[in-house]
Amino acid sequence: MNDRIYTAAVIIIGNEILSGRTQDTNLRDIALSLARRGIRIGEARVIADVEASIVAAVNELRVRHDYVITTGGLGPTHDDITVPAIAKAFGLPLVEDPTLAALIRSRVATPEVLAVRLRMALVPQGTSLIENDVTLPGLCVGNVYVLAGIPHVMRAMLATLETRLVGGAIVHARSVTAFTGESAIAKQLTEVQVRHPSVDIGSYPFVRDGRVGTTLVVRGTEIPLLEEVIAQLEVMLVAAGVQPTRE
Amino acid sequence: MNDRIYTAAVIIIGNEILSGRTQDTNLRDIALSLARRGIRIGEARVIADVEASIVAAVNELRVRHDYVITTGGLGPTHDDITVPAIAKAFGLPLVEDPTLAALIRSRVATPEVLAVRLRMALVPQGTSLIENDVTLPGLCVGNVYVLAGIPHVMRAMLATLETRLVGGAIVHARSVTAFTGESAIAKQLTEVQVRHPSVDIGSYPFVRDGRVGTTLVVRGTEIPLLEEVIAQLEVMLVAAGVQPTRE
Repeated sequence: MNDRIYTAAVIIIGNEILSGRTQDTNLRDIALSLARRGIRIGEARVIADVEASIVAAVNELRVRHDYVITTGGLGPTHDDITVPAIAKAFGLPLVEDPTLAALIRSRVATPEVLAVRLRMALVPQGTSLIENDVTLPGLCVGNVYVLAGIPHVMRAMLATLETRLVGGAIVHARSVTAFTGESAIAKQLTEVQVRHPSVDIGSYPFVRDGRVGTTLVVRGTEIPLLEEVIAQLEVMLVAAGVQPTRE
Repeated sequence: MNDRIYTAAVIIIGNEILSGRTQDTNLRDIALSLARRGIRIGEARVIADVEASIVAAVNELRVRHDYVITTGGLGPTHDDITVPAIAKAFGLPLVEDPTLAALIRSRVATPEVLAVRLRMALVPQGTSLIENDVTLPGLCVGNVYVLAGIPHVMRAMLATLETRLVGGAIVHARSVTAFTGESAIAKQLTEVQVRHPSVDIGSYPFVRDGRVGTTLVVRGTEIPLLEEVIAQLEVMLVAAGVQPTRE
């Protein structure tokens, strides 16, 4: 652990997310996994299966963040273009990875199917592998980590990745909820935030059983400070005439 | 309807999505709604509640797409900064909208709460409103449409927006599924895609009840052509020794 803040960007590659056919769940899984390593997601993008879009997003984000995680486009079909696009982004040639090729050759296949599968062994020069129990490894090219799009496969690769990435202080969260609208507490809430600039206070209104409520989430790296801020928010809520509940 | 392709970008503004606390569902709802108007989502971004990030994303995307839809950050608390950030992106002053101010004044409130709420009537000069049955209107500034983050509120604004946006030809989809791995059909699938460049064929593998399968989705604006391509894919699947099922 150290004082530096580590950030990552996530690039979700897939027409099926942009068309609305598929509900993405990978971003949330990645965010929760990296948070356990003290790495914050700075931004995320959902882009189409288009080479130029992948190249542009990878090159813009890999210099801005410690890590870039991509999901999707790793298979053997014509719409799986992530790996050659990442090679292009880095200006690296595609070479056959001997470990990937051996894994592919170990599976029974006709010569035609084997030839198709062996294209998945072509990776940017210098790639390392993200082994997992489910399928072929994910890839690591520089600070870009290339994971599958199918959620259970992505999670298997992410579990391996989580053991490897170096991060900083872990961001913890504490929250308190009350049945009040945001307007009734906005002014006092701002005062608490201004007094404690090292924590990040989020205010999230909701409707539950027809009643308007607000959850206040305090995030930061120092747990005693989070507890202190939550206590101040509880005092604020009681003064506003509502009953706070920790969640 | 016309021949031009209309695209939109979606900007999801919210620390709670990037932290993994909240699973976003708004992108999919927006994609499905705009698809009914013949508008395609070209890209989507998830960004933090940070003014500079909002300004940069809005200004980059509003010149690249016909429409930009933002979600989140519309409330009265300190972390709701979307509206002033959009004013800054356009270089427009914030002015009180008389309709918004009247709506806010029509609700019972203490003077202090009223003052907090009236800040939500400050909008970029020239803003028009996106009325809805749930809460205060969403905002339209140039080609940027500013919606709430809470899903049921967002959907209410989106329902109004869907009646207003102009789009092009609607993209339809047809799909066929078979219990086969992708590698066994990848080569033939590429041939079908190459023969029909005006449709977009996606291949989506899955595991169901322990069996590997693949769904092939064909998307395009001409339904007879989609039907023809699906028929060709069915022939291809039968030739590969598997039974196709339309879904």
